[in-house]
Amino acid sequence: MNFLEERILKDGIVKEGNVLKVDSFLNHQMDIDLFNEMGREFKRRFEGIPINKIMTIESSGIGIACIVAQHFNVPVVFAKKSKSINIEGEMYVAEVESFTHKCKNQVIVSKKFINPEDKILIIDDFLANGCALQGLISIVNDAGASVAGIGIAIEKGFQDGGKIIRNLGYKLESLAIVKSMDSEKGTIEFTNRGEY
Amino acid sequence: MNFLEERILKDGIVKEGNVLKVDSFLNHQMDIDLFNEMGREFKRRFEGIPINKIMTIESSGIGIACIVAQHFNVPVVFAKKSKSINIEGEMYVAEVESFTHKCKNQVIVSKKFINPEDKILIIDDFLANGCALQGLISIVNDAGASVAGIGIAIEKGFQDGGKIIRNLGYKLESLAIVKSMDSEKGTIEFTNRGEY
Repeated sequence: MNFLEERILKDGIVKEGNVLKVDSFLNHQMDIDLFNEMGREFKRRFEGIPINKIMTIESSGIGIACIVAQHFNVPVVFAKKSKSINIEGEMYVAEVESFTHKCKNQVIVSKKFINPEDKILIIDDFLANGCALQGLISIVNDAGASVAGIGIAIEKGFQDGGKIIRNLGYKLESLAIVKSMDSEKGTIEFTNRGEY
Repeated sequence: MNFLEERILKDGIVKEGNVLKVDSFLNHQMDIDLFNEMGREFKRRFEGIPINKIMTIESSGIGIACIVAQHFNVPVVFAKKSKSINIEGEMYVAEVESFTHKCKNQVIVSKKFINPEDKILIIDDFLANGCALQGLISIVNDAGASVAGIGIAIEKGFQDGGKIIRNLGYKLESLAIVKSMDSEKGTIEFTNRGEY
């Protein structure tokens, strides 16, 4: 079991409906030492792959992305979520449909900040059905840039997002993959890295 | 002129209506080396003041807060903005009225993550009329915790937020205070630290 899986077992709370609350260290209160450990691990997993920019999506991906960026020595760009279609200036826009919230959202990045030469590492806190991630990938492709890899803190392995992204051939590294959770017993099972 | 003022002159863009665009290094694309320089400067300005937590507000404050937190060796909590009043669980809620957008928003923090013993440094990217900041201060006070200081990257000195906060007795440190801007000439004037 790795450091993030241990932390999830220690401080994560399983709620009904396959909800995993990690707001005490990941996405409301943020443990910066833990983020640095994640940065070192992502650096190890993407060793030797050219990466010149990290991209994430607001809000909870931003903190992790900024700390991880120090380990790659690259800038970060965060995509904005919007419900409006009133776009000023030159923006890449991806329309993404949320399965959970049953609404359409836009993911937006200014064209100034992605170039065709960019080799982008996408970083986010959670991967479940992967809608937001699909929007980010779509924007990188629109810009003619390339996705060098995708680094996720926690993947819900029982939802389809991770499988779809791996099927598409992307190098996706999730530090913790939840295989199953039980809200009554409060138990969490993880998938070993060799198993996917 | 300090490092941030120099960077604003180099890469900031003045738009009509007193809009200062710094999205190439501060609040869309993020220069992590610059954020670390800001962290060192905040550490210097708040030297000797006990601080055990940093608080900020989504989205563009999060990256700066996480990098700055490394220089204080403390965790970060980010407040969430919400238009809804459907709050799950135990949350501190501050209602803030935006002058610019003419709407009311809520600033929300889980009660779990602020304690009466907390000495909180509030960090944000911009201070203009100070609505969001007033909401954060209100939440810290509701929790019985104390505001140890407020660190802002860019203050619009020609708007009232900074004056109000200083009048209330808070130790507010802005790394760059814009005195005036001219969108036609593209010029920006800063206030010296001794002047306020």
